[in-house]
Amino acid sequence: MNRREIAINKLKSLGDVILDDVTQGRIPRIKVPSRGTSNIIYDEDKRHYVLGDRYGTRSMGNVKQIKKIGQMLYTANFCKDLVAREKTATLRELYYISEGWEVDFADQQESNIVGEDLEVTLGMTREELGLMPEEDGASVYGALTVREGDIEIDALRSGKSGYNISPTIDEVEFVDHDVERVIAVETMGMFHRLVQEKAYKKFDALIVGLKGQAARATRRFIKRVNEELNLPVYICNDGDPWGFHIAMVIISGSAKLAHVNHQLATPDAKFLGVTASDIINYDLPTDPLKDVDVVRLKELLQDPRYRGDFWKTEIKKMLTIGKKAEQQSFSKYGLEYVVDTYLPEKLEAVENQ
Amino acid sequence: MNRREIAINKLKSLGDVILDDVTQGRIPRIKVPSRGTSNIIYDEDKRHYVLGDRYGTRSMGNVKQIKKIGQMLYTANFCKDLVAREKTATLRELYYISEGWEVDFADQQESNIVGEDLEVTLGMTREELGLMPEEDGASVYGALTVREGDIEIDALRSGKSGYNISPTIDEVEFVDHDVERVIAVETMGMFHRLVQEKAYKKFDALIVGLKGQAARATRRFIKRVNEELNLPVYICNDGDPWGFHIAMVIISGSAKLAHVNHQLATPDAKFLGVTASDIINYDLPTDPLKDVDVVRLKELLQDPRYRGDFWKTEIKKMLTIGKKAEQQSFSKYGLEYVVDTYLPEKLEAVENQ
Repeated sequence: MNRREIAINKLKSLGDVILDDVTQGRIPRIKVPSRGTSNIIYDEDKRHYVLGDRYGTRSMGNVKQIKKIGQMLYTANFCKDLVAREKTATLRELYYISEGWEVDFADQQESNIVGEDLEVTLGMTREELGLMPEEDGASVYGALTVREGDIEIDALRSGKSGYNISPTIDEVEFVDHDVERVIAVETMGMFHRLVQEKAYKKFDALIVGLKGQAARATRRFIKRVNEELNLPVYICNDGDPWGFHIAMVIISGSAKLAHVNHQLATPDAKFLGVTASDIINYDLPTDPLKDVDVVRLKELLQDPRYRGDFWKTEIKKMLTIGKKAEQQSFSKYGLEYVVDTYLPEKLEAVENQ
Repeated sequence: MNRREIAINKLKSLGDVILDDVTQGRIPRIKVPSRGTSNIIYDEDKRHYVLGDRYGTRSMGNVKQIKKIGQMLYTANFCKDLVAREKTATLRELYYISEGWEVDFADQQESNIVGEDLEVTLGMTREELGLMPEEDGASVYGALTVREGDIEIDALRSGKSGYNISPTIDEVEFVDHDVERVIAVETMGMFHRLVQEKAYKKFDALIVGLKGQAARATRRFIKRVNEELNLPVYICNDGDPWGFHIAMVIISGSAKLAHVNHQLATPDAKFLGVTASDIINYDLPTDPLKDVDVVRLKELLQDPRYRGDFWKTEIKKMLTIGKKAEQQSFSKYGLEYVVDTYLPEKLEAVENQ
């Protein structure tokens, strides 16, 4: 069975559960795994957040829940139609399309939650159900050829801004590659620097421009190249709590998406960005930590994902020196320095660990 | 002379002016056209903002201006080096690189302003001088082949997210096309809808996903396809003051960039987005105008760029009905409606005007 058939079967099974209840004379009900904070657990083995065993029951016998079940079934039916027709819709379109239903959504938050309810109930991502986020994913440059439908795309020949990961990344097939690692950077400024300095050649690397917080499609792409192509992944972000956390969400997933982290998290990815030690060792231009940075760094110290010695040491050191630095600050030493000196030193350190 | 040679010559001429003054025993000075609001004029013929004739003089004889001139010359020298080596740098990198100069920048705002000073003094865009914005431009899907260096890229074969306009758009050559018009949309959600419903085929169109406010590279791209390929451009945005203005900045440029609007504005581009009349005629799902929307709409009524009857009527109508609507709200009538019904009707109306 391919992914589409699985999705259609799972969506149908949701209807079957209801039909069964009705034909057996029982009150229809659906079990929905709980996404409450008490059911979100950091799994030490899997190295990301997962959902626990708790679940709630939506029952037609409960007046308050009837509308919710109706919305869920309408949405499931809409998704079944989408997947069958090989179409996708944005969450925004889902919200508007409900205007034609007998149980429409009051606002988009309500429709987004029903989308998540379906994800967690069926154990599939909403992308597999045809529901796409608005935003595109990262830019990719390097010796990787992918196939989208009957079109092959060479990420070395897609222009200076590279191949753009679309929300439908799971339909993309990896055809061929000639790289040994993945280097992801936080900003497109740094992406263009790495492309311009031919870092893809120098490091036999795929260069990935994350564009800030990584989109779901980007996280899925990184997980897939890591697991399917067996490529180590290095994330080179700014040296501040936001840069750290953009990397960590790629590595260990987010609590909010505990139910899909198994499809998104890349626990073996490594942070290769600017650290407090780098700030000192490379005498980088810095900005003082703002209050909000300090608060955030202290939160990270309490976060199970930052449990390792590396993070504890670097976060504490950053709090001590009271400074942060961006990746582009290496250009103090010239535009080429980051590719000619910094990255080789960092890569050697992490690969010989 | 190619673009690079022109840029190098212009940058050198700036140094020559100073050298001349020094060798002639005069106090070195540079004339910088004024970017103050009183020197920003809406040009009725050109249909965009331009700079007037006023200029200021930066003189080495004025203690307050010495540092500014020094920064300008260091930056010009840096740019000359960039262009000569066929490199680019982000404005962020420019800021950091000044750490190695004798006249560094206090913050990035200062270095950005010097970048604009150079643009306006030399009459070239900062991109021509090698200084790139961080962000990439729009996504393009359709029958257009471009060349970047020795690589040809077919925007029909670049993946579902299309060809990504890079900040170095002026180095891109248009090789071939088989389209009759350009349809630009505000969101990537709508971009993917148009690609999925094959709007590029149905309307013989290039589909451009603006991603909100259009980047400079996007505006330059749109101007170039309009003028070099002689393609009409239609901008299909949300029906709210922000959607209107995203379109208007593409059409008539911004006041802030009056000195480069001649390279960025596309006065013949047409707004084809959601209007107050559409909201009524298509009975669209709406949101009430917020206070900030009302304020903004009233500002637009005072703006010379919105002088035409079309805009006056539609803005007043929107204020009267007190409602706004997004493009994706057409999905109330099904996902295909926007491509099957709405766009054909709008296109026919505007093309038979």
